[in-house]
Amino acid sequence: MKPIIVINFKTYKQGKAAVKLAKAIEKVGKNIIVGVQASDIEEIARKTKLKIYSQHVDYFKPGRHTGYIIPEAVKKDGAEGSFLNHSEHKLKFPILARTIKRCKQVNLKTMVFASELKQAKKIEKLKPNYLIFEPPELVAGKISVSKARPDLIKKISKNIKIKFLVGAGIHSKEDVKTALKLGASGFAVSSAVAKSRNPYKKLKELLR
Amino acid sequence: MKPIIVINFKTYKQGKAAVKLAKAIEKVGKNIIVGVQASDIEEIARKTKLKIYSQHVDYFKPGRHTGYIIPEAVKKDGAEGSFLNHSEHKLKFPILARTIKRCKQVNLKTMVFASELKQAKKIEKLKPNYLIFEPPELVAGKISVSKARPDLIKKISKNIKIKFLVGAGIHSKEDVKTALKLGASGFAVSSAVAKSRNPYKKLKELLR
Amino acid sequence: MKPIIVINFKTYKQGKAAVKLAKAIEKVGKNIIVGVQASDIEEIARKTKLKIYSQHVDYFKPGRHTGYIIPEAVKKDGAEGSFLNHSEHKLKFPILARTIKRCKQVNLKTMVFASELKQAKKIEKLKPNYLIFEPPELVAGKISVSKARPDLIKKISKNIKIKFLVGAGIHSKEDVKTALKLGASGFAVSSAVAKSRNPYKKLKELLR
Amino acid sequence: MKPIIVINFKTYKQGKAAVKLAKAIEKVGKNIIVGVQASDIEEIARKTKLKIYSQHVDYFKPGRHTGYIIPEAVKKDGAEGSFLNHSEHKLKFPILARTIKRCKQVNLKTMVFASELKQAKKIEKLKPNYLIFEPPELVAGKISVSKARPDLIKKISKNIKIKFLVGAGIHSKEDVKTALKLGASGFAVSSAVAKSRNPYKKLKELLR
Repeated sequence: MKPIIVINFKTYKQGKAAVKLAKAIEKVGKNIIVGVQASDIEEIARKTKLKIYSQHVDYFKPGRHTGYIIPEAVKKDGAEGSFLNHSEHKLKFPILARTIKRCKQVNLKTMVFASELKQAKKIEKLKPNYLIFEPPELVAGKISVSKARPDLIKKISKNIKIKFLVGAGIHSKEDVKTALKLGASGFAVSSAVAKSRNPYKKLKELLR
Repeated sequence: MKPIIVINFKTYKQGKAAVKLAKAIEKVGKNIIVGVQASDIEEIARKTKLKIYSQHVDYFKPGRHTGYIIPEAVKKDGAEGSFLNHSEHKLKFPILARTIKRCKQVNLKTMVFASELKQAKKIEKLKPNYLIFEPPELVAGKISVSKARPDLIKKISKNIKIKFLVGAGIHSKEDVKTALKLGASGFAVSSAVAKSRNPYKKLKELLR
Repeated sequence: MKPIIVINFKTYKQGKAAVKLAKAIEKVGKNIIVGVQASDIEEIARKTKLKIYSQHVDYFKPGRHTGYIIPEAVKKDGAEGSFLNHSEHKLKFPILARTIKRCKQVNLKTMVFASELKQAKKIEKLKPNYLIFEPPELVAGKISVSKARPDLIKKISKNIKIKFLVGAGIHSKEDVKTALKLGASGFAVSSAVAKSRNPYKKLKELLR
Repeated sequence: MKPIIVINFKTYKQGKAAVKLAKAIEKVGKNIIVGVQASDIEEIARKTKLKIYSQHVDYFKPGRHTGYIIPEAVKKDGAEGSFLNHSEHKLKFPILARTIKRCKQVNLKTMVFASELKQAKKIEKLKPNYLIFEPPELVAGKISVSKARPDLIKKISKNIKIKFLVGAGIHSKEDVKTALKLGASGFAVSSAVAKSRNPYKKLKELLR
């Protein structure tokens, strides 16, 4: 089976630059999941066939709630899902639970970040579509989770039944291979691709 | 001088419905300020000539910060400014101060909500472009600030030097007239227009 | 039936000054509920027989959670209950729901603040022990809720089945009488007593 | 020079149990810093001569602010300082800056947690009294920072001029020795002592 590939744009690129990045990624594969800012979803959905995830959504229902990002909004703009609980955007557990429920109501998939096994197991009970395991110390760093914590990936694999991806510091095809061998269904990258001068080439390298 | 008109879309409408609402408003006047969800800015900027404000922005700089809405993002999408500190999205003061600074760096105007005079004076020192005065008890209600608290509008007018608008419960042309007579430079509405079956007609009525 | 009296110390006084305030209140009546800072609960519980409420608790269980105030901690210090969702300390609804549950687990009563009827009815379903109705515009102001919004008190009374108190701007015995006549089981004051030079006398006046 | 020892009680123990823990620690040394819950400060200050730090304080000034923990309150209860920005209680940077300022105003020392060098350098500019370096992945874990990341301790030592301690997973005297040798002025422990059946003995072991 092919690995699930997730590219988190974070706020490295926005507007036209984000669209350009998305187009470069699309050339590598239409099945790639891109995590984009709420403000870029509609345009990237219109101009590419990538699978688009919002980087966050709030749990509110349509109505008041000035300034929040609601599931309905990103869904209508063309998002297939949303990230939740990224280490840079942690949610208190009752909020995470409520938000996953709200996403299910509007058929928005959820990809929830976890930083350790205990948390991952707690999140699993909320039945998100995917779990991404990212040890926080490795986020935006140069050491990959595959190299630094293969033990953790294996443990997650044994203990978690829903599909999980690994993130944090994935930079080389060896990192990718190790992650998949240890039981991950895919992997997430961010700066390695989003900040690359040649994202197409960088991504190709990772997938070789 | 013509009053400044602000229409806060909140999350009443999103995607195509928000665009449709914006087009109806545009027929009344291109100078109207619409406060739209981050996810709708780019499309409304592309399809109308309205002045667009984001309903909120975070203070972060481009880089990491997964899931936040940064000033650069909404600016590039075509926003002229951003609301900040709406009663439904209050910011702690040090965060508000930092966010206004960041908006200035990218030439994004700021329209900051205040609920009482003391707070308004504190916010004035941060030099936002506009202040909107909205007594929280009247937000989304049926009694207008013009009717319920003319005293407060007058007091604000005497004590605040930057341009201020009034919001909360504006439903009739009398409400509008009173507000302007008492010293406001304009007014903000939300549900009265955003939830109306005929927003064009409703807005026309308010401006007669 | 005797009215329930609540005095919110906020952060007007702390340490010895808070204890002194509590002792003055105790002379008026031991059944008065005082809302004190977490740091003052143990001492006031030791030195008075007042009913003590924490001004806030977090929903976490004993364990990690550095820097949070947990139900067990205030209970062991002698608190009978906790305020929740004060207008100066609003909680997102899923957090409020979780916190009320946690308080019930440790037999800590809950007194939950609401600012309008719709919210009050939503909170009622969580079955707190008391509801306090405080229109935010009147908090720390000079106009009492009894005078400014008798209509709202009556409406709350008709629509809410659990015991409710009214707060915000109660300064005179007339305010108190009106509130009780309209259906409230009691009232909450803060600055009127906590900032008074002679809190004993001030409280006596309110209760005459 | 003697190492600075910090013991974070977190919410493992409260009330009488926290006092008992503090007394056991006092037998090992009066200069030990204990990080206690706001609700336990006054009692532990009264019953021991330990150096007491609050686990958190908010930046608000005395006045309203129902339910917050203000610097004045913990100072008056006998605290010498406060932790800030623990990995379980992270503060946005503008809030951290404001809180350190407020603590200085009331002569409350600050011990600020950092999880990586870049952040530590940013925090150093705010001039807290101490910095505690705790890689988040090791918090409450079984691997010590001394063993897992000696490189990081050394790097911190080279780049940070204010006194810094190391935390996270310190369990043995070897961990302690390594940390001090690499340039740390002290170390912080939590569960190893706070959850121990014999905290006196455990602490003695660490210091042998």
